[in-house]
Amino acid sequence: MKAKKKDRTQREKALSLLKRKIGAEAIRTDSKSLFEASLDNARLSFLPDAVIFPRKEEDVGALLKLANRHRVPVTPRGGGTATTGAASPVQGGWVLDLTYWRSVKIDAESGMATVQPGARIATIQRAAERKGWFYPPDPSSIKYATIGGTIATNAGGMSGAKYGVTRDYIFGLEGFLPTGEKVRWAAGLKKFASGYNMRDLWIGSEGTLGVITKAVLKLIPKPQARWTFLAAFPKEVQALRAARKLLKVPLMPAILEFLDRQTVQCLENYTAKPVFKAAPNSSLLLIELDGHEAQIAEEKEVVMQWAYEHASHFREATSLEEAEELWAVRRVCSQAMFQMGDAKLNEDIVVPMQSYIPLINHTLKLKRDFGLATPTFGHIADGNFHVHIMFNRGDKKQARQAEKAIHALMQKVVSLGGAISGEHGIGLAKTPFLRLQHNRAEINTMLAIKKALDPNYILNPGKIFDPYQVWKKEPAKVRLPWDHRPKSS
Amino acid sequence: MKAKKKDRTQREKALSLLKRKIGAEAIRTDSKSLFEASLDNARLSFLPDAVIFPRKEEDVGALLKLANRHRVPVTPRGGGTATTGAASPVQGGWVLDLTYWRSVKIDAESGMATVQPGARIATIQRAAERKGWFYPPDPSSIKYATIGGTIATNAGGMSGAKYGVTRDYIFGLEGFLPTGEKVRWAAGLKKFASGYNMRDLWIGSEGTLGVITKAVLKLIPKPQARWTFLAAFPKEVQALRAARKLLKVPLMPAILEFLDRQTVQCLENYTAKPVFKAAPNSSLLLIELDGHEAQIAEEKEVVMQWAYEHASHFREATSLEEAEELWAVRRVCSQAMFQMGDAKLNEDIVVPMQSYIPLINHTLKLKRDFGLATPTFGHIADGNFHVHIMFNRGDKKQARQAEKAIHALMQKVVSLGGAISGEHGIGLAKTPFLRLQHNRAEINTMLAIKKALDPNYILNPGKIFDPYQVWKKEPAKVRLPWDHRPKSS
Repeated sequence: MKAKKKDRTQREKALSLLKRKIGAEAIRTDSKSLFEASLDNARLSFLPDAVIFPRKEEDVGALLKLANRHRVPVTPRGGGTATTGAASPVQGGWVLDLTYWRSVKIDAESGMATVQPGARIATIQRAAERKGWFYPPDPSSIKYATIGGTIATNAGGMSGAKYGVTRDYIFGLEGFLPTGEKVRWAAGLKKFASGYNMRDLWIGSEGTLGVITKAVLKLIPKPQARWTFLAAFPKEVQALRAARKLLKVPLMPAILEFLDRQTVQCLENYTAKPVFKAAPNSSLLLIELDGHEAQIAEEKEVVMQWAYEHASHFREATSLEEAEELWAVRRVCSQAMFQMGDAKLNEDIVVPMQSYIPLINHTLKLKRDFGLATPTFGHIADGNFHVHIMFNRGDKKQARQAEKAIHALMQKVVSLGGAISGEHGIGLAKTPFLRLQHNRAEINTMLAIKKALDPNYILNPGKIFDPYQVWKKEPAKVRLPWDHRPKSS
Repeated sequence: MKAKKKDRTQREKALSLLKRKIGAEAIRTDSKSLFEASLDNARLSFLPDAVIFPRKEEDVGALLKLANRHRVPVTPRGGGTATTGAASPVQGGWVLDLTYWRSVKIDAESGMATVQPGARIATIQRAAERKGWFYPPDPSSIKYATIGGTIATNAGGMSGAKYGVTRDYIFGLEGFLPTGEKVRWAAGLKKFASGYNMRDLWIGSEGTLGVITKAVLKLIPKPQARWTFLAAFPKEVQALRAARKLLKVPLMPAILEFLDRQTVQCLENYTAKPVFKAAPNSSLLLIELDGHEAQIAEEKEVVMQWAYEHASHFREATSLEEAEELWAVRRVCSQAMFQMGDAKLNEDIVVPMQSYIPLINHTLKLKRDFGLATPTFGHIADGNFHVHIMFNRGDKKQARQAEKAIHALMQKVVSLGGAISGEHGIGLAKTPFLRLQHNRAEINTMLAIKKALDPNYILNPGKIFDPYQVWKKEPAKVRLPWDHRPKSS
């Protein structure tokens, strides 16, 4: 979408006013900065007019007010690890980069952290752990993702079933309305029941309803111990059936990761060694228990007994290093898949437990029907599967097949009572499927809220609601900070 | 607020249309039914025109559509245990009573419950516990409060610091927009990141943004064991200082209740026996640990050591019966206070941990300055204090003093960085203080959302935003189901 001439004049005028207001040194327009701010991990590049690095709180308000007056799109940006294009400035304008605002203060007495939006998740976790506390949300981009971005997308991670998602660890938010007024939602207290729950409406709204400048996080006591375990199954269906049996206990593993055989093959090629020597080419379940040592000791017995009955092979990590080795393999799953195609449609769907097997069978059917690899792994205790549809973008036929396959997948997911996104959000990538998930009244309600808060439609416009055919856009060839191979040792 | 003549004609017409649409047997207009639906635990009675007991889902939509067409106020109602007047039909019209919709289905495999809005919290808890699961939110009205009402108010309870509030246990909601369209928010899955988080916006919106007809709840594994402990301190300040030391560990008690000496005196008069024989007229902390037995055993040592250092007297409950006895006393606190006046302003404020002592000193100052009793107890691990201002309503001077005292309290709370409500919500009772808590931009945003969802302002109108001087309204003399003395044994 190109800005029309009148819009362009408006935008130029606005930018010179902004320079005067907040200082030219807070604004970058060099091509390197523009390109870096033009995309996220979905690699869909749309160049902005400028990247703004505000130095003071009130600069954010001033910027938004100017943007409203001159109708300049504003796209807030954190670490840029979104996989959906949520941070791409699809309509140009200004990128608002708050990654330099990164203070982290731990209140060890109250079990809370007060953080700025640019603080990285790994930094927050380390700071909390130094004082005996724990911040559980663990997206795999943990070293790069910022708290602002993970709040905007309500990011999840592997430990969601036991520990919940980002929304479950937010006591309060401060920031600015799209129209530039300063607001504070929920005051950062442990309970708050005054007025509408705007805090939670902001969470997961992908930077379209407000700009976060401060967050108060909930911390919990750090689990005393962990235990990691790997179990192999000849086929996916057997792994999933066994997982359901394990969860029935009720036993609440901190992590229960499922890997299908396509994923395991990718990993084995990528790292050039078997994931589980005794059982190559198996579907795997990676299990982690955490909590009090005595509790783990008991639950471990339950898991071992279960493994004897259901798994073909299994092994426990007998040291922290061994556990870390298992997790390192899991963390490169996403990267490893690029052997099966230079492009992937990466879906983070959710289905109810009763639909795990129909879902995995459907991914195998898609593979047969469309001739594309569909490696799938996921967080099985909460039904959040990552289904990937791999293709080579240069191959027009494959690209068309991928488009058909993803439509078939999303329709199936919704028909199984599932969700088109569990933790990535909609961004640009899932926009064609939003209307599969929500009826007209639901969409209209969301749009009415957008209009109520952002009447000029300036804050991260083009996201969530406007259908965008992501598979038709050529991704940028770029090496992002998290693009690396694991050490092969 | 009396309906004008034109409004009355409209309302009569609407009611006869409604009878035709959903059946006369679903509608009650007898004076007993009208009175019962006219108030909640705040006892502020406003008679509705009719009480509607819909039999089918679509009846709810039809009712709301008619109400919009003819501008009839609709007030949804659960167990009527709200303490703020949130369920009072302040503008008349129709009360929508869903207490007969009470099915509870436990999915023991997924750790979820699917419930209808009229299911009582105690019923849900028992059903979950029978299958080894646990639904933690525990408002003291647990036997009478419905899940619909506790979602509408985001109810808390004693175990909030460890287990969170109602919002933390809601996976999905279904129901109707104020304009009558059926919607489903978040599909009842363990993760959901598609579109705006409308589910959480409904939670705590006090029945002003939608009518809930179904909820999917999160359950957690039931804690294996509990341990209950009572500690006495000569003065409030010592109790609070000790509580802060205990929380520093970090140790997460399931419950940490504080009782000031005024509360303890009320209890002792009411039950005609000392709460803690060894230490009459003390400020108390009631502590409960839960979890794995081995963990409790360790934490117990920490608590005992802490008690030796800080408490004047202490005692552990050595049996479940003894523990239950301690809790029974705590549960009648609210009732016991009516010895100090026939009316109370019951505030559920929250302050940060650093402000506990300034807060309690302020309640004692209010007592001195206004000559009214200010018994205070509360959930200390999350800073949620219940401050009561007691007076005799027949005494005009006392009523004026109470009004002044509550304004002074709320101003102090906000100046301490606190919240005017932690778990009761605003309803009618806290409306005069909403603008102390929220700035103009915040209030305008909330009002814009109300308008976006309920353009005709028919759903539970008059609540949250319109200042209402609750102390000027004579409460109804009525015996509600939960008005009873404890067995004195």
